[in-house]
Amino acid sequence: MQTILLVVALCGLLAVAYAIWATRSILAADQGSARMQEIAGAIREGAQAYLARQYTTIAMVGVVVFALSWFLLSLYAAAGFAIGAILSGLAGFIGMNVSVRANIRTAEAASRSLGAGLGVAFKSGAITGMLVAGLALLGVTLYFLVLTGWLGFGPGDRTVIDSLVSLGFGASLISIFARLGGGIFTKGADVGGDLVGKVEAGIPEDDPRNPATIADNVGDNVGDCAGMAADLFETYAVTVVATMVLGAIFFAGSNVIESVMVYPLAICGACIITSIIGTFFVRLGSNGSIMGALYKGLWVTTLLSIVGLAIANYFTIGFGDVGEASSGATINGLNLFICGIVGLAVTGLIVWITEFYTGIGFRPVRSISEASVSGHGTNVIQGLAVSLEATAMPTIVIVAGIISTYQLAGLYGTGIAVTAMLGVAGMIVALDAFGPVTDNAGGIAEMAGLPADVRRSTDALDAVGNTTKAVTKGYAIGSAGLGALVLFAAYNYDLQYFVAQAEAGNGYEYFRGVQPDFALTNPYVVVGLLLGGLIPFLFGGIAMTAVGRAASSVVEEVRRQFREKPGIMAGTERPDYARAVDLLTRAAIKEMVVPSLLPVLAPVVVYFAVYLISDKSQAFSAVGAMLLGVIVTGIFVAISMTSGGGAWDNAKKSFEDGFVDAAGTRHMKGSEAHKASVTGDTVGDPYKDTAGPAVNPAIKITNIVALLLLAILAHQ
Amino acid sequence: MQTILLVVALCGLLAVAYAIWATRSILAADQGSARMQEIAGAIREGAQAYLARQYTTIAMVGVVVFALSWFLLSLYAAAGFAIGAILSGLAGFIGMNVSVRANIRTAEAASRSLGAGLGVAFKSGAITGMLVAGLALLGVTLYFLVLTGWLGFGPGDRTVIDSLVSLGFGASLISIFARLGGGIFTKGADVGGDLVGKVEAGIPEDDPRNPATIADNVGDNVGDCAGMAADLFETYAVTVVATMVLGAIFFAGSNVIESVMVYPLAICGACIITSIIGTFFVRLGSNGSIMGALYKGLWVTTLLSIVGLAIANYFTIGFGDVGEASSGATINGLNLFICGIVGLAVTGLIVWITEFYTGIGFRPVRSISEASVSGHGTNVIQGLAVSLEATAMPTIVIVAGIISTYQLAGLYGTGIAVTAMLGVAGMIVALDAFGPVTDNAGGIAEMAGLPADVRRSTDALDAVGNTTKAVTKGYAIGSAGLGALVLFAAYNYDLQYFVAQAEAGNGYEYFRGVQPDFALTNPYVVVGLLLGGLIPFLFGGIAMTAVGRAASSVVEEVRRQFREKPGIMAGTERPDYARAVDLLTRAAIKEMVVPSLLPVLAPVVVYFAVYLISDKSQAFSAVGAMLLGVIVTGIFVAISMTSGGGAWDNAKKSFEDGFVDAAGTRHMKGSEAHKASVTGDTVGDPYKDTAGPAVNPAIKITNIVALLLLAILAHQ
Repeated sequence: MQTILLVVALCGLLAVAYAIWATRSILAADQGSARMQEIAGAIREGAQAYLARQYTTIAMVGVVVFALSWFLLSLYAAAGFAIGAILSGLAGFIGMNVSVRANIRTAEAASRSLGAGLGVAFKSGAITGMLVAGLALLGVTLYFLVLTGWLGFGPGDRTVIDSLVSLGFGASLISIFARLGGGIFTKGADVGGDLVGKVEAGIPEDDPRNPATIADNVGDNVGDCAGMAADLFETYAVTVVATMVLGAIFFAGSNVIESVMVYPLAICGACIITSIIGTFFVRLGSNGSIMGALYKGLWVTTLLSIVGLAIANYFTIGFGDVGEASSGATINGLNLFICGIVGLAVTGLIVWITEFYTGIGFRPVRSISEASVSGHGTNVIQGLAVSLEATAMPTIVIVAGIISTYQLAGLYGTGIAVTAMLGVAGMIVALDAFGPVTDNAGGIAEMAGLPADVRRSTDALDAVGNTTKAVTKGYAIGSAGLGALVLFAAYNYDLQYFVAQAEAGNGYEYFRGVQPDFALTNPYVVVGLLLGGLIPFLFGGIAMTAVGRAASSVVEEVRRQFREKPGIMAGTERPDYARAVDLLTRAAIKEMVVPSLLPVLAPVVVYFAVYLISDKSQAFSAVGAMLLGVIVTGIFVAISMTSGGGAWDNAKKSFEDGFVDAAGTRHMKGSEAHKASVTGDTVGDPYKDTAGPAVNPAIKITNIVALLLLAILAHQ
Repeated sequence: MQTILLVVALCGLLAVAYAIWATRSILAADQGSARMQEIAGAIREGAQAYLARQYTTIAMVGVVVFALSWFLLSLYAAAGFAIGAILSGLAGFIGMNVSVRANIRTAEAASRSLGAGLGVAFKSGAITGMLVAGLALLGVTLYFLVLTGWLGFGPGDRTVIDSLVSLGFGASLISIFARLGGGIFTKGADVGGDLVGKVEAGIPEDDPRNPATIADNVGDNVGDCAGMAADLFETYAVTVVATMVLGAIFFAGSNVIESVMVYPLAICGACIITSIIGTFFVRLGSNGSIMGALYKGLWVTTLLSIVGLAIANYFTIGFGDVGEASSGATINGLNLFICGIVGLAVTGLIVWITEFYTGIGFRPVRSISEASVSGHGTNVIQGLAVSLEATAMPTIVIVAGIISTYQLAGLYGTGIAVTAMLGVAGMIVALDAFGPVTDNAGGIAEMAGLPADVRRSTDALDAVGNTTKAVTKGYAIGSAGLGALVLFAAYNYDLQYFVAQAEAGNGYEYFRGVQPDFALTNPYVVVGLLLGGLIPFLFGGIAMTAVGRAASSVVEEVRRQFREKPGIMAGTERPDYARAVDLLTRAAIKEMVVPSLLPVLAPVVVYFAVYLISDKSQAFSAVGAMLLGVIVTGIFVAISMTSGGGAWDNAKKSFEDGFVDAAGTRHMKGSEAHKASVTGDTVGDPYKDTAGPAVNPAIKITNIVALLLLAILAHQ
């Protein structure tokens, strides 16, 4: 098995190697005019300054958590935490640094052809994608190898499990801060800049006279690129770790324990290779369809991944009977292979459903455009209607995924399906991370006064980016939904393990006599479901308020600059871009801390509160129910926000080439209907880029903290 | 116990007597000028025409369901269904007919003084309130008396339980149709009328030149009065029935079974008397505070109800040990009394929290007004933030209610708390139903060209109406949250009963060998939670779309009339009001059917789908989890929509006297900030008056259908 682990690590390294190669090839591309370089330089500086500040703040929290994990658990757990946190930060940091260099090169390439622009932008996205998948896989694999190989712990040893869970926690903590902080920055800049620029001053988006325009472009990089990377890194790491832990628990004491723990890693290794191959198939076809080009890459990756799954099976658990799980059921390798295919199918279906709900040309976006004709209010009403409705099909797909994988191979089968789903994360992130690059490229083209057709190319790329951004979020939250059972099962079986050991007199005294009751008939379970269900709503509300506040401060700052420097609007005076960036940096960092702590502290508070009112057993029951509660509402909140926001954004875009309503009237950019669609887009911004995507790490972190709570109590 | 039942029935009759007395006193009031009577006549005709059409459609569905219940269950069940449906319809029908006569008299009274206007409007609301509580209590009590007294069934007999549950189902079916149909009508008219009138034509609300203005006023009556009455009737009936069923199950075979079944009825009887007394304390004080006047009545009712609870205890179960429940725990009368007080406390807290989130002068509404200064988008963002945040405190109150009542007296204690909560429904509905009357009175004052200060009085009453409307909705959904356990427990224990009987060879063969597993570790439970959780989202999305569609058709109709009758705007030609009313009637009736069937069919479809995939046990488990899933997301969706909508509405109202922002600038009606606040109000309309409130009957109906499904399967 050590050989297989080394091969898996090699796959991770290959992803990193791809990233290095692609970075070189991007840096070698043409950088355009001096004016373009000046603008891109300002964006780069702002983004780097923000990220430095964000990581400094997170590092302070991180050091405290590191010390706590060492003190409460072990040095290995603390090291795991550090590995997860550092690698997640690294993926975001490098990805963003490439992104801020690729934007200008995309603008320059787009001035040659749409295909060339797509090439540079997608390659930049693929770097972030491969770093996310590669570094996450490397981190988990190598640390597992170190713990079980060099340090000699058994694969199912508590130290190994605790350390892997801590690694997941490290990734989660970075993720929630990065998603929220980045989300508040980017949408504060976007909403505030639009309000004062487009609406008040009547200047177009990305006009260099708008003092918030550099901040807006910085936001694309720190929010949509670095924040998203941290989110997916976490989803990837937590899913793989949870599946490994589940395998360790199900096959505790059996001789196949090592293979079932290595199997998920092997799947991820195989899928990284297929993702790398897929990237080479993204090329604009003769029909000029950007979405078609991206889909080509995705389908190649997905189909090849079926072969990859088969190879992973062959070298680890095979296709015959794997062994008897602790539940007594026999698990079969072929069935697990089919579970993996189900995971890939769920990915494909979610991509397809999300495109339907957010893509221009389908009923939902058309209905929002149509509603814009009657006014601002109806635009928002229809957008909210679409956002609510958009939850239905993904939920049914997830439910089908849960039932089929469970029937095939129990909960471990569900875990394998989620692992396969996340396996292709490199490709999915690539589709997403190309969005902010094209968005930036459009901004640079506008500010540098490049010809209109360059902007048209970058706008076309950007419209597709709106859909692919929604796709990634749907995918991440979909994996959380399907993985809900896996995370809850990890908690449940961990708890069972500690109780059984305590009863047998093998330590873990704290758990003696604990009898959790997870039945819905237990009122504490209902209480846990309600309190867990509250988290996404409260969290979303706080995040939306934070964006509103940040946007208002941008509006004030821009108004002040216009007032104090009357030459700005005439084009004779340069706005102070750095002040807006700096102001947003401080606002985002300040606003991200409190909501981030909500899901971290919630399980701990609920545990001790119920313990005081009732007893340990009920406290564990309530916390367990909380984990499912946060997923049950979180999945709906997140899907509705991200799909609704994407649909609003593209409804606005549909006016750019003129939208023909049901009565046959064409509404152009600047019409009343277009203005109404801008309102919807503004509302959708924090929905889809701040509150909605941050729900995903909030779900995960609640689960991970609950697992750590068990581990910590076990150490008492 | 029969004497007590007769006394309870007498209390119900007293409520009806109050309604008759109050109706006479309203009808005796002055009706104002001929012009006012003409307008009020048009509103009355439209409302009656709509209700006739709605009841005809429901009757067609009702006859089918009646035949099905007779065929699948028994004549007694079918009769119960008819009683529930007819009485619910009657409460709404009479209440609305009073309301359409009180509006004009309120306008006339308001021209004398604010206090006189409040007096007429509140009395009209109290009629609806007392009819809802009185008829619901009469129906349940008398039917229980007939079944157990005259027909000689034992109080815990299956026929009695099935018949009571069917009565609840009858109420639920009316409720969901009335809430949705009325909601679509009223908000289609409101949104559509505002868009084309206020925004396009630039004429004020309720201007007689707007062809949709009569429809808007009709909507207030059919949606906010008749629809709300049906909703609360259902909540009342279902809660009382569920608590009685729970008592019957917990004390099955014991000699106290009759007292524990009569106890909830006695509580309701006592609280009706206290509600009637409370209405006489609603009188404008010297400080002129309308909210203060309403609160006086509410607090008198609440405090007197504590005495009422004590009397109910004294004559039924006493204050000592009641007996041993089937769970083995001893239940104590004093503890049940305290549970009742907890129910009243939950009511008070929810009223207080809702006022905080929707009242002018508190942080949330101020924050929305402030955000309107930056534009339409930020207004909507802040409103959504408030709506999400508003779920937190009510959830914590509900959780505290669940835990404390369960600790005191188990699930039956929770049932008693919800019963006490609903006991004061007469008073709460009175607070709500006065809103549409004042809204109409304002419309009539505007259209009839009464002096501006009359409109000022009706506007002041209307602003308070926005808050009290949100309060009722929060109260209804809060009771559903607290009652979640009771409804689920009824399902669970019913199922257990059938299984036990089948195992013992006492019939119910269908249930032999069924072993439901409601633990969260069962994937079918997670599936049930997710599918149940989907219902409020999908249902909300469909309802919002329906309103948007209805509003668009109103916009087109009004534009057509303006085009074809150019004299309308000049005031020389009369708009065709009836066409708009007729158009909305058809739209609302058509649009209400499909979404109403969603919660009705969902448990049946899930049961048979899971049965086919797995087995009966898992099918029952999934349906059980679905019942909790629909509550867990439903409570958040409903609270966020109703509170958010109320806050938006009052944020708009805050501009009418000029809103002073943080920078000290005053924004008046007609300013850009005011226009932005109108957008938020438009969005909030279907949120708070269509989708949000309809979630409550959707939750109940899912639960009731699941109970009926058990009863029907038991008959196989």
